[in-house]
Amino acid sequence: MINETYRAMLGRKSVIRELSELAARMAGEKNGPEEIFDFSLGNPSVPVPEAVTECAVRLLRDQPSLVHGYSPTLGIPQVKEKLAASLSRRFGLSYTGADIFPTSGAGGALAHAFRLVTVPGDTILTFAPHFPEYRPYVTLAGCRLEVVPPDLKAFQIDFDRLEQFFTKDVQAVLINSPNNPSGAVYSAQTLEKLAGVLERKEREYSHEIWLISDEPYREIVFGGGTQPCPARFWPRTITCYSFSKSLSMPGDRIGYVAVNPESGVSHELAAMCGQVSRGLGHNCPTALMQLIAAECCDLTADLSVYETNMNLLYDGLTELGFDIVRPGGTFYMTPRAPEADAGQFSRRALAYGIVVVPCDTFGLPGYFRIAYCTDTEKVRRSLSAFRKLMA
Amino acid sequence: MINETYRAMLGRKSVIRELSELAARMAGEKNGPEEIFDFSLGNPSVPVPEAVTECAVRLLRDQPSLVHGYSPTLGIPQVKEKLAASLSRRFGLSYTGADIFPTSGAGGALAHAFRLVTVPGDTILTFAPHFPEYRPYVTLAGCRLEVVPPDLKAFQIDFDRLEQFFTKDVQAVLINSPNNPSGAVYSAQTLEKLAGVLERKEREYSHEIWLISDEPYREIVFGGGTQPCPARFWPRTITCYSFSKSLSMPGDRIGYVAVNPESGVSHELAAMCGQVSRGLGHNCPTALMQLIAAECCDLTADLSVYETNMNLLYDGLTELGFDIVRPGGTFYMTPRAPEADAGQFSRRALAYGIVVVPCDTFGLPGYFRIAYCTDTEKVRRSLSAFRKLMA
Repeated sequence: MINETYRAMLGRKSVIRELSELAARMAGEKNGPEEIFDFSLGNPSVPVPEAVTECAVRLLRDQPSLVHGYSPTLGIPQVKEKLAASLSRRFGLSYTGADIFPTSGAGGALAHAFRLVTVPGDTILTFAPHFPEYRPYVTLAGCRLEVVPPDLKAFQIDFDRLEQFFTKDVQAVLINSPNNPSGAVYSAQTLEKLAGVLERKEREYSHEIWLISDEPYREIVFGGGTQPCPARFWPRTITCYSFSKSLSMPGDRIGYVAVNPESGVSHELAAMCGQVSRGLGHNCPTALMQLIAAECCDLTADLSVYETNMNLLYDGLTELGFDIVRPGGTFYMTPRAPEADAGQFSRRALAYGIVVVPCDTFGLPGYFRIAYCTDTEKVRRSLSAFRKLMA
Repeated sequence: MINETYRAMLGRKSVIRELSELAARMAGEKNGPEEIFDFSLGNPSVPVPEAVTECAVRLLRDQPSLVHGYSPTLGIPQVKEKLAASLSRRFGLSYTGADIFPTSGAGGALAHAFRLVTVPGDTILTFAPHFPEYRPYVTLAGCRLEVVPPDLKAFQIDFDRLEQFFTKDVQAVLINSPNNPSGAVYSAQTLEKLAGVLERKEREYSHEIWLISDEPYREIVFGGGTQPCPARFWPRTITCYSFSKSLSMPGDRIGYVAVNPESGVSHELAAMCGQVSRGLGHNCPTALMQLIAAECCDLTADLSVYETNMNLLYDGLTELGFDIVRPGGTFYMTPRAPEADAGQFSRRALAYGIVVVPCDTFGLPGYFRIAYCTDTEKVRRSLSAFRKLMA
């Protein structure tokens, strides 16, 4: 019979999708706003590097049997070696190919990571604000997602609240830095303090606690900074990565799980991903995208537009009286809404052509998200729409 | 803590992999057989059509934002329309895009299909011989796989045994025709009789029973025949397809779920695939492969070599005294082993450079599988190795 769990989910539409669809409809209307500023979707706006295209064409023409043949269950060995070498060089850890499992983007990586270190019924802890999809991802893995309320001052971690939310059932802690939606970049100090908590809780509860680090925005950090590598602070870290933002290719569904070699069980966990995959029906991502990732993993698209846009918006909106924690990276920011109900504010903004997303489903009520992965001139023009809205 | 279910699975190595690895090692040995005839893996041996390569290159160069941008959750609409139109034209059903959900190959399609129409604890019935991966696929979806013993005469369906295995817990029946490993092609008569059983059992148990039809070998049928379309015989059919064999591109991980429009709930079920995906961490297959599938879905690679190889092997081995049901399609056949223990026979064959797989894990003890997706001259030379083995 038809599965009622999934059937019931059909009714619950994502606010983000709803707003972006509304925006698309408004764009075609006669009496609507002059211009639509769609800040709803986190879809990278910069082109893929030319090197990716050339690499793809070359592989398709010169190595058809490698590209179109089955990839080994655990991924193409030389791809894994290259990804490991790049990680090791950049972050000072000693990854080898056996620590890496290629996946279909970060979503695929998370689906594997959850199942490696939890069983149904376990709790996974994360921090607000968080990507709303974490809830179905975790729930459909049979686990419970508990959300630690946000540190509103800097969107780092509120360690007092973390203490209150930690229970013996917590088997994994899920972080996402640089963060969607706040743009916050966890500092070395935050990561060190978090590791201290994990160490203490492991002793207290007499079981291992894993850190699952979702890092699709790792390469988008502003002011010339970098994201301190979470795995360097905690041996039991599983890094979930996607090339969707760094290479501007979300449609190509390529990422990986990297298990921290310092955990002592990294080869085993990476190999277990192949078993998890049998249940998820993944097998490996396409051989073509694996090979491209290996060749292009040290490149990025031209990501500078995101910082330009952030500066424009932060300065312009702050001047208009918005209260914003300045993002350290990503292509998002979360100003506080000037009224208590951010949903109502977002609907009011629509009349001015501004499409922003209320952060209630991100665990941050009273705030809204601006996804500024768009054209800089459009961002500039949006400021006068914001001005009219606030007048 | 580390999930013990997946950890325990690490120890259990697939017989197929073990044998193919052994074959690879033997090939490098000095005192081994003159030539290795590796019939262990079902990896298509013919090249991808030139049209696929050209289509890929053109898309990469001309439509980068379509190729690299996020695909909609339920797949690219124009891709779904084209796949539906092709199915409708070929099989006389009225599919529309809303009945189709693109997936990462047939494995991905099955993972979705199981979850659409079962809940954990349900039983899925299949028929021996069967693809061994059905067991982990079904088990990790939380269901129980029950296997109806084979009809050894023709590898159609033993309807008396089916009757014995049908219980109220059976929510779905899984078929695979053309069949891996036997090469059998279910006849219209078999499918009609099966539909009759499903209809009767639905009344008897007062619940719907779904037919999940795994059809990656649909385009490889011998003697100018075609596979009768299972969906035409039963309204509640979910077709799981992969282009891996028809276009010879398993590494590209592209297939689909097609829900029979006659079920009356096909749009709903196809939409539910998007919800199932959130749990599986799939999202859509790559946009590039979706677009290629849409453009090339009516082409095939040159599949004629499989029939040439089948005829050579069938005639040659029958002459040597092997008892074989003549395959109607695929690139497999399952001769009866000349000794009761097919595993022992397979090990004996290794000394002659012949790598074949005992069918115990396919639910067919006493038989072995030959995967003849290989060079025809090699197949021809293998016959003298078989002759020596049998002498």
